[in-house]
Amino acid sequence: MKKLVLAYSGGLDTSYCAKYLSKEQGFEVHAVSVNTGGFSSKEIEEIKEKALALGATSYTSVDAIQTFYDTVVKYLIFGNVLRNNTYPLSVSAERIVQAVEIAKHAKKLDADYIAHGSTGAGNDQVRFDMVFQTLAPNIKIITPIRDNTLSREAEIAYLKENGVDYSWEKAKYSINKGLWGTSVGGAETLTSNLPLPDTAYPSQLQEKEPQQITLTFEKGEFVALNGKKDTPVANIEKLEAIASKYAIGRDIHVGDTIIGIKGRVGFEAASALITIKAHHLLEKHTLSKWQQYQKEQLGNFYGMLLHEGNYLDEVMRNIEAFLSDTQKHVSGDVHVSLYPFQFRLDGIDSPHDLMNASFGSYGEINKGWTADDAKGFIKIVSNPGKIANFVNDANAPTH
Amino acid sequence: MKKLVLAYSGGLDTSYCAKYLSKEQGFEVHAVSVNTGGFSSKEIEEIKEKALALGATSYTSVDAIQTFYDTVVKYLIFGNVLRNNTYPLSVSAERIVQAVEIAKHAKKLDADYIAHGSTGAGNDQVRFDMVFQTLAPNIKIITPIRDNTLSREAEIAYLKENGVDYSWEKAKYSINKGLWGTSVGGAETLTSNLPLPDTAYPSQLQEKEPQQITLTFEKGEFVALNGKKDTPVANIEKLEAIASKYAIGRDIHVGDTIIGIKGRVGFEAASALITIKAHHLLEKHTLSKWQQYQKEQLGNFYGMLLHEGNYLDEVMRNIEAFLSDTQKHVSGDVHVSLYPFQFRLDGIDSPHDLMNASFGSYGEINKGWTADDAKGFIKIVSNPGKIANFVNDANAPTH
Amino acid sequence: MKKLVLAYSGGLDTSYCAKYLSKEQGFEVHAVSVNTGGFSSKEIEEIKEKALALGATSYTSVDAIQTFYDTVVKYLIFGNVLRNNTYPLSVSAERIVQAVEIAKHAKKLDADYIAHGSTGAGNDQVRFDMVFQTLAPNIKIITPIRDNTLSREAEIAYLKENGVDYSWEKAKYSINKGLWGTSVGGAETLTSNLPLPDTAYPSQLQEKEPQQITLTFEKGEFVALNGKKDTPVANIEKLEAIASKYAIGRDIHVGDTIIGIKGRVGFEAASALITIKAHHLLEKHTLSKWQQYQKEQLGNFYGMLLHEGNYLDEVMRNIEAFLSDTQKHVSGDVHVSLYPFQFRLDGIDSPHDLMNASFGSYGEINKGWTADDAKGFIKIVSNPGKIANFVNDANAPTH
Amino acid sequence: MKKLVLAYSGGLDTSYCAKYLSKEQGFEVHAVSVNTGGFSSKEIEEIKEKALALGATSYTSVDAIQTFYDTVVKYLIFGNVLRNNTYPLSVSAERIVQAVEIAKHAKKLDADYIAHGSTGAGNDQVRFDMVFQTLAPNIKIITPIRDNTLSREAEIAYLKENGVDYSWEKAKYSINKGLWGTSVGGAETLTSNLPLPDTAYPSQLQEKEPQQITLTFEKGEFVALNGKKDTPVANIEKLEAIASKYAIGRDIHVGDTIIGIKGRVGFEAASALITIKAHHLLEKHTLSKWQQYQKEQLGNFYGMLLHEGNYLDEVMRNIEAFLSDTQKHVSGDVHVSLYPFQFRLDGIDSPHDLMNASFGSYGEINKGWTADDAKGFIKIVSNPGKIANFVNDANAPTH
Repeated sequence: MKKLVLAYSGGLDTSYCAKYLSKEQGFEVHAVSVNTGGFSSKEIEEIKEKALALGATSYTSVDAIQTFYDTVVKYLIFGNVLRNNTYPLSVSAERIVQAVEIAKHAKKLDADYIAHGSTGAGNDQVRFDMVFQTLAPNIKIITPIRDNTLSREAEIAYLKENGVDYSWEKAKYSINKGLWGTSVGGAETLTSNLPLPDTAYPSQLQEKEPQQITLTFEKGEFVALNGKKDTPVANIEKLEAIASKYAIGRDIHVGDTIIGIKGRVGFEAASALITIKAHHLLEKHTLSKWQQYQKEQLGNFYGMLLHEGNYLDEVMRNIEAFLSDTQKHVSGDVHVSLYPFQFRLDGIDSPHDLMNASFGSYGEINKGWTADDAKGFIKIVSNPGKIANFVNDANAPTH
Repeated sequence: MKKLVLAYSGGLDTSYCAKYLSKEQGFEVHAVSVNTGGFSSKEIEEIKEKALALGATSYTSVDAIQTFYDTVVKYLIFGNVLRNNTYPLSVSAERIVQAVEIAKHAKKLDADYIAHGSTGAGNDQVRFDMVFQTLAPNIKIITPIRDNTLSREAEIAYLKENGVDYSWEKAKYSINKGLWGTSVGGAETLTSNLPLPDTAYPSQLQEKEPQQITLTFEKGEFVALNGKKDTPVANIEKLEAIASKYAIGRDIHVGDTIIGIKGRVGFEAASALITIKAHHLLEKHTLSKWQQYQKEQLGNFYGMLLHEGNYLDEVMRNIEAFLSDTQKHVSGDVHVSLYPFQFRLDGIDSPHDLMNASFGSYGEINKGWTADDAKGFIKIVSNPGKIANFVNDANAPTH
Repeated sequence: MKKLVLAYSGGLDTSYCAKYLSKEQGFEVHAVSVNTGGFSSKEIEEIKEKALALGATSYTSVDAIQTFYDTVVKYLIFGNVLRNNTYPLSVSAERIVQAVEIAKHAKKLDADYIAHGSTGAGNDQVRFDMVFQTLAPNIKIITPIRDNTLSREAEIAYLKENGVDYSWEKAKYSINKGLWGTSVGGAETLTSNLPLPDTAYPSQLQEKEPQQITLTFEKGEFVALNGKKDTPVANIEKLEAIASKYAIGRDIHVGDTIIGIKGRVGFEAASALITIKAHHLLEKHTLSKWQQYQKEQLGNFYGMLLHEGNYLDEVMRNIEAFLSDTQKHVSGDVHVSLYPFQFRLDGIDSPHDLMNASFGSYGEINKGWTADDAKGFIKIVSNPGKIANFVNDANAPTH
Repeated sequence: MKKLVLAYSGGLDTSYCAKYLSKEQGFEVHAVSVNTGGFSSKEIEEIKEKALALGATSYTSVDAIQTFYDTVVKYLIFGNVLRNNTYPLSVSAERIVQAVEIAKHAKKLDADYIAHGSTGAGNDQVRFDMVFQTLAPNIKIITPIRDNTLSREAEIAYLKENGVDYSWEKAKYSINKGLWGTSVGGAETLTSNLPLPDTAYPSQLQEKEPQQITLTFEKGEFVALNGKKDTPVANIEKLEAIASKYAIGRDIHVGDTIIGIKGRVGFEAASALITIKAHHLLEKHTLSKWQQYQKEQLGNFYGMLLHEGNYLDEVMRNIEAFLSDTQKHVSGDVHVSLYPFQFRLDGIDSPHDLMNASFGSYGEINKGWTADDAKGFIKIVSNPGKIANFVNDANAPTH
């Protein structure tokens, strides 16, 4: 019997796959789900029951939250990565780690096939297939939803015929939750001109009283919240619990999909956005101008390739080495105030703060140099322009 | 008598210069102020009177608001330029235009000297001197404040002795207002850890009721607000009048000054931030991925050089040509909702919107290609990774 | 009868297509070849005869040399574009222009189909198809060689059966000649470790006596050779005639193909390489540091997208606008010495030369500034490093 | 007595400094020279004698060749760094290491002053001062040549008066030799249009018979020449001994100096150029497209900052981490043929060669994918262009 690993989420599409592949196609189906922060243990238990009921030979839940942080989220923080200056790559980033874990699982089980439930219209098919083809080139990929383009109704009917009768009412919005944020798609996100209604977002405003919190970073990692040390993963989760009550971190990402069309997706990512912005502020105080310049370019590029499923390109490891090396002095406290729907960066305290008054205060006092030094400096930095103007007899480019 | 043009703002430092240079140094002082959006005609009248009272032979007010827009602000919008991802370069950008206008004025008057009131600790001295040395290499630069490092008290005492007795009480915050925003410095901005108090900002919350507004862009220029056509300058000013009532657009910029120290400055720039973010959203819908990629890199670089006074480098003209060329299809309406202290981008309508449903909807339907096309695509884009993994026998880089 | 435009070169593959598509598939075949510098009028006459003999209803030769220069080569010179720092993109660049011309021809004829002879293993299929699908989305693409993977023997046999009996002996090397260079593939280029033998290259050493030549550029365009004015196209051709006698400009390009594998191709491009290097030297004398910096980045990117068939992306037009704008002062003479197998850049004369002695000579005299200016300059530019070292108490990073 | 460390080269300028500072200024002069590859032990002995004869209290020669390689040259190879696509940064790179070693020496001796002989017109003053001010902020810098702008004649006369009577005849060209190449300045390099004569270069053609050599790299380092293992430093020196007989590696660098004027300098760097180009070819076979893309950008930037004396900026360490990480698979043999005045890259052998025939041969066979896969790929990658053209109804951009 041909062994098949199915990426199983418990939803309609992959439930259809589980039944169809085991019953009609005769595969020995091993369902697997990879938890990157979206599932409670109760939900995992339910997914397991469903999988087995649908005909899966086995079900495995891989806890990959720490792996997700170690291999991806950490670098998204180091790089202050926001796709198109907006989106913390919540879903994109998870898919890669899920694919890597599924490939490992399939190789461990010595499976002949990997199946997943992606359609032919989205990014996830690319992220999954690229990782599978690269890490498990001898395992065949099977994608019934993409190949057969069945309607939801047809899937439900087939499952009913086969004695599976869960309630599959379609949620108005498709929600994807994980450690690094929750994506929200549906209705308005298929248009260009409509925002998502408040109710579409998973978190609702519960707390109106402002509060100031403090994030502590150590070499770029989020090591304490309000003075309490914990793992970065735990701190991200704790911050989410606090900040989501303010309904912070909602936005809509408009981006270029891997398959070349434009796409729009809502998201809510309070903890991701606060962590990145706080980290970025700390870097403004502790890194040189050129470090920030190159980090911006490389972080942006890293986000692009990650988004496009190109995580396994060696250049990604090289950029990770660069980013890690930049974090040597990115240590200190960042103070942030939370308000309904928004947050404000208040300031930082760091032993590595380069805004050091013993050299002078911007615009006020110059302790480290004299007026003549400043004039000499300006004379020399003006050389190229002076020469060009002299040589080319250019008039003032005031147009 | 040696002819001198003095960049005159009406403040204590340049008032001291006016008196000192005319009386003690025997210059024929021609005061000039360049309005880039910060002065009302009443204020200009007062500045004029002061200048003449202090001994200036002439006073000229140059209206450079339109020039400021045409030569700088337009490109900051085209490039979505925010220094360090935060600051719309409000003051930096104005200084350049002011310097260019002063140099032109000095050449017109055939002056031998230009004087300005900058200290030796800030960016402005560099911006002024670089432009003067480049555009007017034969005119000497005189900077009494930088050279003599006088205290405020000494300046006031000197003016009093000479019969000038305006009230020079030091404002708690130094405020610089212009078309593209207002900077706020003082007290807290000299620390790293304190935010500015609400009261430090020029605009206070006056309007709590949310409203939706619409910005219309034509080839990247802001041509109408709420459907009413006007010049971009007028639209920026009108938007400021509406949005500043919501106390939108406050933040603190932490940056690397030209003279190599870190500096911190508060700012309020409701209109600039809304205009840039709205324009950026429209671009996400109307530009290709690679256009956005290169615009981000070049816009960021443009902001860096502008900030550092390098506006006259020819590369700036080249980047402006690039940016202008990218705006051919950046036309359409952008809908924005205003709330107290914040705004939300709601969506866009554009005949050039590339999110066009006739090719498919992201994640939902693929009209322009088949499942097999998608699979072929993924197979080919996976080639480099597959080959590298095969050749290098690399294990999964899951660390 | 279904109208089909066939990209016809006169070679075996497209000759097979001509016969097969007209006879077996019943198409009305309109053969077209686009001359981007590789064909003499005699060769075009022969191609025409062949096409008609093979069953083509019509044959058209499009003279696109000037178009090739105007839309592509000009920008490759402005950008000093060498793919992987080696290859002037001779073939890649031509294919795009050929595809655009064929698409235009097909639309003019109101054709239903476009056919070409590319295989499924190379770059050209991508370049052709991308342009056709974009510019002529309603015309179907037919590629018998890619689809059927016939052997040369089978093709020859089929043609013989159908009374076509040209001699199709396979040249040892496949040669592609055009205005911007000649590519050479075969035998050794399929290995990684063997160079092409001398005899594989089209030009052989005929001239051993060195000579100095002068290229004159006007706003970046090659307007005169040895003082004689002519069109850039004519100058490029004349330079090729002179320099190819020295067997200059041979090399092997190792690159990443669009379909993700590595490829190796020999080329000979005396005129292209001399023109680019001479132009680049002139820029070193006439452009600012930052212009050169950004030109290098954008030129490199432009070459990558052109190579990959992405010529129609709007970002390419934007970069062309940038590059054109940089050429305002790139005017002057460049002196080059030719030797067997190599050339040397001797120097330049330009009214826009920024190496102007009236400001000082590098390392010798500083006329434009004093020792104290230099010391002030160094003090200020050292600020960031001094502060960082002081704050972080870093030891010398001498490892 | 005030302790002073003098960067001493044995030339006229620093000899003047040695006498003047010890005799007239009463310093306790400790002369030091740092060998980065330019001095034989005999020359060092002569320098020592001279220094002591001129009044130096002590003389120290620091052997920094290995340090030079470990901290700079290695990264210039990893990054294939050629300033302005031409110059291996021979002198620029050495100066930094010399400055760091001198600063360390001065701190060890607990000196109060560091003196060097640079003028105010060149790059070296910046490189020296920046390093000294950053690493030894409490040590004062003294530069008699820069401050006093004495003529050679005056210096010679002063030394003669003081009983020092070496022959100081000015060489026609000023030559700077080191591990990574030799710079040549004088006469023609002060013009824009004249090449250096053959005789100005240190090496003359001695060998006309071509030979093929093989460079072996291990993780990017040059570990063997012609199969014989040795240290990278030794291999670079051995290669220089072989290749300089062919008079390979001569060129003129035209660049932007740190002080803003253009400068021109000749150089001869056979070993540096062959090593870099061989290493680069190996990378074309072993790195991904995106690795090469980012390496080019970062390598170029690294060279710019190194050239400008900004070696101590932390971003340089970050880029070094990036570059090191890219070299994991850059191992193999590179075959190079040497000819009079030039060399040719013949090919490579590497277990990490990604040009692997089992996936297909470029343009010939596609083993890893089908024609339909290729067509699906092209269809999808054409999506953005197709949509843009459809939406914007653009005509073919054939201008």
